[in-house]
Amino acid sequence: MSKKEHSEKIYKKARKVIVGGVSRNTVFRKPYPNYANTASGCYITDIEGTVRADFANNMAALIHGHSFPPIVDAVTEQLKKGTAYTLASEIEVAFASHLVDRVKSFEWVRFVNSGTEAVMTMIKASRAYTGKTKIAKAEGAYHGSYDFAEVSQGANPSNWGHVNNPTSVPLAHGTPSGVSEDVVIYPYNNIERTLAILDNHRGEIACVLVDPVPHRVGLMPGKERFIEAVYNWIRKNGALLVFDEVITLRVNYGGAQENYGVEPDLTALGKIIGGGFPVGAIAGKAEVMKVFDPHEKNLLLPHSGTFSANPITMIAGYTAMQHFDQEAVKKLNALTDKAVQQIREAIKIADVPMSVTGAGSMFRMHLQENPPSTYRNTYLDDDGKQLLNELLDYMYNKENTLMINTFSCMLSTVMSQKEIDQLTEGLQRAFVAFKPKIEKYNKL
Amino acid sequence: MSKKEHSEKIYKKARKVIVGGVSRNTVFRKPYPNYANTASGCYITDIEGTVRADFANNMAALIHGHSFPPIVDAVTEQLKKGTAYTLASEIEVAFASHLVDRVKSFEWVRFVNSGTEAVMTMIKASRAYTGKTKIAKAEGAYHGSYDFAEVSQGANPSNWGHVNNPTSVPLAHGTPSGVSEDVVIYPYNNIERTLAILDNHRGEIACVLVDPVPHRVGLMPGKERFIEAVYNWIRKNGALLVFDEVITLRVNYGGAQENYGVEPDLTALGKIIGGGFPVGAIAGKAEVMKVFDPHEKNLLLPHSGTFSANPITMIAGYTAMQHFDQEAVKKLNALTDKAVQQIREAIKIADVPMSVTGAGSMFRMHLQENPPSTYRNTYLDDDGKQLLNELLDYMYNKENTLMINTFSCMLSTVMSQKEIDQLTEGLQRAFVAFKPKIEKYNKL
Repeated sequence: MSKKEHSEKIYKKARKVIVGGVSRNTVFRKPYPNYANTASGCYITDIEGTVRADFANNMAALIHGHSFPPIVDAVTEQLKKGTAYTLASEIEVAFASHLVDRVKSFEWVRFVNSGTEAVMTMIKASRAYTGKTKIAKAEGAYHGSYDFAEVSQGANPSNWGHVNNPTSVPLAHGTPSGVSEDVVIYPYNNIERTLAILDNHRGEIACVLVDPVPHRVGLMPGKERFIEAVYNWIRKNGALLVFDEVITLRVNYGGAQENYGVEPDLTALGKIIGGGFPVGAIAGKAEVMKVFDPHEKNLLLPHSGTFSANPITMIAGYTAMQHFDQEAVKKLNALTDKAVQQIREAIKIADVPMSVTGAGSMFRMHLQENPPSTYRNTYLDDDGKQLLNELLDYMYNKENTLMINTFSCMLSTVMSQKEIDQLTEGLQRAFVAFKPKIEKYNKL
Repeated sequence: MSKKEHSEKIYKKARKVIVGGVSRNTVFRKPYPNYANTASGCYITDIEGTVRADFANNMAALIHGHSFPPIVDAVTEQLKKGTAYTLASEIEVAFASHLVDRVKSFEWVRFVNSGTEAVMTMIKASRAYTGKTKIAKAEGAYHGSYDFAEVSQGANPSNWGHVNNPTSVPLAHGTPSGVSEDVVIYPYNNIERTLAILDNHRGEIACVLVDPVPHRVGLMPGKERFIEAVYNWIRKNGALLVFDEVITLRVNYGGAQENYGVEPDLTALGKIIGGGFPVGAIAGKAEVMKVFDPHEKNLLLPHSGTFSANPITMIAGYTAMQHFDQEAVKKLNALTDKAVQQIREAIKIADVPMSVTGAGSMFRMHLQENPPSTYRNTYLDDDGKQLLNELLDYMYNKENTLMINTFSCMLSTVMSQKEIDQLTEGLQRAFVAFKPKIEKYNKL
């Protein structure tokens, strides 16, 4: 069998039974995706036998890389005792205790099955608590596939309107107009404009949804002054401040929210807290979380879920988070700082107009010399997207490096200086190879 | 340690960190829930050592009961190779092929992480395909926690309005009014009224959502004439017929939809297709499913998901469904028929005004002599709910039998005549013990 026929053959079968041939658009790759065979630590081997360093970690979900032995052992043990009951299980209590101890703003937790469910449930909880229906979210920010949370995720110059009053742009065709009408769009990190927009909807807003380091907006941390201004606004106006930390919990031991002097009322979690298994959670102030409490005479938000808090996800997630302790976070962030430093050096040596943004163990590279400061500034036109895809393909095919499709990396604790050096050297070769195109794109 | 202190002690800790002390309202139990220790086959043992026969099977999700050896083996093997990649995996193609072969209306599949996500994605796909925004759903039917799907799930006499035009009643406090306005409520199995209601929204309806055996409506199968009438209406009016088979896929080898002469355009799946792991899926006609296709120039419904089609869920689900073959389905349904027969006999002997409804391997018992024919007829007032809870507590505490909290059972293939006899004998004792209360409730 030739090296390339195998994945191509599976993909041909896949096209017949899976729409588009892929289960997730993120793994779509032209002319066909490679199929994974096995993965261990920070390396993943496809069925053709190609080994790639994995800087995507299943879209930032695997904080300890693949097949982390303590997780494999714990899950193997639990498997024999059952994977899901119509009873409670002890492990959910231990894990919830861990999360409550870990993050200052967490008083009560409720588990769900995905980041999408976590954000949806958090928005519903905000509405239930405040009795108001509108939410405010940042232009360009990704928060999963609940249609209210999707508004303006894909806004583009043809539809995003004036920056002083960004248009609410639905993502999917056929989205009810009521959905866009109930979502207010603010420009991330811009205090003056954001407050003016919020003021226009005073009395109607249930929550301001904030990702403290929004990946698609440009992976720039929220400024302390911005977060505080939003906090002061919500406190004055009977709304809630809710964080999407599905991706960013990894930034500090206590989440990206540790960086701020104010605390969110609710936080949505996912990704790393599942230890490689489907997961989501909502956590926050008891005063707000009580909308879920079946002991309340008037239950404001009835909520259940067949697989929520299943003991497999719980034991895997608890194990992952226990091993991602203060020291592990510190070490991983230091390694990431080193990587960013080396990449900036590589950019300088290759002399390409590029920049890097990020926080904690995440970074994103941009096709512009000055790091973007807004979503609109981060936004790539078709030429930019095309160039980025070429760079990603180069890294994937020539350097055997798997990255997130925004040209981002989310590191894992099992990485070492060796992988950082390989990545940096690979990127340097890519920068040199694409220098003319990157320069041309910047001059357009 | 006394027998009862243990779960009580854990629950005390749980109350401090998990809202209401429970991760799912379905496991909530007064004065405290029992915590599972281990489960195997159709028995589950709590940490006090009490063994209960499990007729709930994690809310109908475990078609082969607990710790099914072929699933344990397959998952243990996959665990060593990784639980989630940012690459495709072969097993998703094999599993999708199986599902497409299995159900006539399935041409293309897309996997998600829960039944809630499946129904939400199916509704979004219907809107994206038709460009219309309203959906129609049955009064009282449960379809997960997407707020559009939740409308009138908990409708009650104080708010449900006239049966000719049931009110759209939001479930959660703070649900945007746009949500209820975009959901049209029809009375299940009532052709004339349903068609009249649909006609009132002609040209606005994206899909009519149908559970072919809606659990909360009364677990009565949809009448063939009703399903066909709805099908004829949607074909004439540019809408789609979409089925929620999250629970009902188990009814026949090819799902409950095998019972009808017409086919749904889309079907939402979940529960048993995950083999005990979090899962959801949408499947149906390629013509509609193409809204997800990233090859399309104009992608109508961008959609992804971190854990969608993860190889652990895929291998567990594929293994479960392969073992739930034509013969296994037939055998399980025959055993269930036997159980229903014996329960009807027990009702007769105890001489209580009760009835049983169901289909395939599911049945539900009702506190009324004539089986309910509508949601409004199934609806229990506070006295009825109280009596039902007492019956469930009796079965749980005195007969060590775990059932679904609507007084329903969802059987698994690892059950035998022995468990059916135990169940029937236990129920008979319950009927006798509660006869005065059941009679009194019926006379009110």
